[in-house]
Amino acid sequence: MSKEMYSFSVEEYMAKDRFDKIKKLAKTNETPFLVINLKIVKEKYEELKANMPFAKIYYAIKANPANEIIKLLFELGSNFDVASIYELDQVLGLGVPVDRISFGNTIKKEKDIKYAFDKGIRLFVTDSSSDLEKISRQAKGSKVFFRLITEGSGADWPLSKKFGAHPDKIYQLILQSKNLDLEPYGLSFHVGSQQRDIGQWDESIAQCKYLFEAVKEQGIKLKMINMGGGFPGKYKNPAYDLPVYTKEITRFLNEDFPEGLPEIIIEPGRSIVADAGVIVSEIVLISKTSYLSPYKWVYLDIGKFSGLIETLDESIKYPIYIEKSGTVSEVILAGPTCDSQDILYEHFKYKFPVKIKDGDKVYIFTTGAYTQAYSSICFNGFPPLKMIIIE
Amino acid sequence: MSKEMYSFSVEEYMAKDRFDKIKKLAKTNETPFLVINLKIVKEKYEELKANMPFAKIYYAIKANPANEIIKLLFELGSNFDVASIYELDQVLGLGVPVDRISFGNTIKKEKDIKYAFDKGIRLFVTDSSSDLEKISRQAKGSKVFFRLITEGSGADWPLSKKFGAHPDKIYQLILQSKNLDLEPYGLSFHVGSQQRDIGQWDESIAQCKYLFEAVKEQGIKLKMINMGGGFPGKYKNPAYDLPVYTKEITRFLNEDFPEGLPEIIIEPGRSIVADAGVIVSEIVLISKTSYLSPYKWVYLDIGKFSGLIETLDESIKYPIYIEKSGTVSEVILAGPTCDSQDILYEHFKYKFPVKIKDGDKVYIFTTGAYTQAYSSICFNGFPPLKMIIIE
Repeated sequence: MSKEMYSFSVEEYMAKDRFDKIKKLAKTNETPFLVINLKIVKEKYEELKANMPFAKIYYAIKANPANEIIKLLFELGSNFDVASIYELDQVLGLGVPVDRISFGNTIKKEKDIKYAFDKGIRLFVTDSSSDLEKISRQAKGSKVFFRLITEGSGADWPLSKKFGAHPDKIYQLILQSKNLDLEPYGLSFHVGSQQRDIGQWDESIAQCKYLFEAVKEQGIKLKMINMGGGFPGKYKNPAYDLPVYTKEITRFLNEDFPEGLPEIIIEPGRSIVADAGVIVSEIVLISKTSYLSPYKWVYLDIGKFSGLIETLDESIKYPIYIEKSGTVSEVILAGPTCDSQDILYEHFKYKFPVKIKDGDKVYIFTTGAYTQAYSSICFNGFPPLKMIIIE
Repeated sequence: MSKEMYSFSVEEYMAKDRFDKIKKLAKTNETPFLVINLKIVKEKYEELKANMPFAKIYYAIKANPANEIIKLLFELGSNFDVASIYELDQVLGLGVPVDRISFGNTIKKEKDIKYAFDKGIRLFVTDSSSDLEKISRQAKGSKVFFRLITEGSGADWPLSKKFGAHPDKIYQLILQSKNLDLEPYGLSFHVGSQQRDIGQWDESIAQCKYLFEAVKEQGIKLKMINMGGGFPGKYKNPAYDLPVYTKEITRFLNEDFPEGLPEIIIEPGRSIVADAGVIVSEIVLISKTSYLSPYKWVYLDIGKFSGLIETLDESIKYPIYIEKSGTVSEVILAGPTCDSQDILYEHFKYKFPVKIKDGDKVYIFTTGAYTQAYSSICFNGFPPLKMIIIE
């Protein structure tokens, strides 16, 4: 068996005194639960602001829609990107003025566009003729920005294909918008969430530049680029630190727009809240399917459907800490439900101390984004499926 | 382009007068919503009972934990299989006596075993030494049954690997249980949900027979086989009708146990409720990513995270009906969220009438199982992840 010793540096992910607070909570609260440290949210926001001072930040609240987080970011001066009218109602309810909100979903019902417009929203994204026409009918005179498709390669949670359109189509949509009493305002792209290849921004910014020039020849002056999200959280797969990203992206922008930058919007979600969260879980059961099986199965009291949906295809690999030492063995990690899809990591093998046992606490770091909301009835803000019983 | 005409026989999935009721509801209720027809639930239960009169039915309430469904099945004489103490509390709260409940999850916290035992539960499943020891400490004298691993091939939603142990291990566990003041009562297996290869039961039943004989030599007489679920709902992929299943399975049982059958338990979930449900959804948007793209993207107001989680890997293919006619074109179907994983069917292409437009109603058949509960805060009965805010 392996002689490898278990080693995990908590301080790589969180300062010791902060983690001590979480361990204290673990003594008195039933697992599983997520702890969010607002101080870290604040630091993350301020770090991003400092490293990209020219960009307007629209926090993508779907990453973590907790009221406390939205209020904090509001006080710090953030704007907000909402994915649905339910998220819109939430931010409005917290006192955020409409001019600090954008409706960032390309998939919208006509009545939802009307609803948002009636509330005062004047900034919409689009990527299709049908959506553009709906906006023109329900949100006359609004500013519209157009989403470019990206390949999403290099992203741990890619966004390719479902969103955006190719440049030739975007070009036509921009011209069309002018005839529909809308203000063609800018372009957007999203390189994919947890994008670890910074070069992806270069390509998309160059596409924006090309389209800015192309429509200028038709008398349309675009004013804004929305670069979406993509900045990293601190997971197991290595990513550069934020300043490396922002420095490079700023350079790409300055190279393509030497005469001065357009208005720049960014929509960070994950990079603001991911590192602020730690899930405290517990080992429910350790088993082997046969005596000679090389792996232990370790079942936690949290699984894919109660918060860890981003383990789908083992996309996001969370740093996982157990307060034990000694030699390690490879484990398969699974959730507590009677569902075979509720396996967290099977191909990528975590190495846990051989001394683990049922009831041991398991700390899952970098879980502030896309966890609690995904486990709840408000994924992306949409309410749960209604059910009607008839007979 | 294709000259193929759209054709969909609603009556293949639901009688006309029943579907008419749903269309009526679609006129006055906001989409998306799920309609469950209790009459169909009753028919499904009774059909199963009639075709397998010797089997005790334990409805797997995780498939659809609606109180109305549990009450109906209770009145019809059903027993219940629960996956967590939360589901246990629910059925007990509805007046189901403890002797009609089994705790069917192999992954259990020790304190949950105690909780169930204190409530009166005396029938537990297990597949590991650690779990068996916990049961022996907290549920003295209880009946225990042992879950065999299956390969799950042939199942549209397989259950292999995560549950069950190999026969050599099960053999040891049975002997161990005897020394732990527990009653080794029987065996269980689950061929995988929506199992379309009936031969899978044959193999597992033969394994049971082998183990019955093997432990008899050690003086242990097992009395029960729990065959789990696996019976089909009516999805797009063809499956035999229920009587073909039950006839074959009965034959397998009689062949292996010619001297008389042991107690037989089945735990149907999907096959009882799937066909009773229809989701009414609506087209939010139709778009193409470029002018020459061969496919339309059709975005519905329901997606993978609001009820259709079984479209993961396109495993379950629901029959989908739109009330239009004419020639068809292939579409990619996606949900309404800003999440790229929220794509329903991309590789398998549904063919929709070319005349579809935004706002058209979309009827998704056979959605009574593993939909509403998966979209809500009680997947498998587990409450949503708690969140604590500190700073």
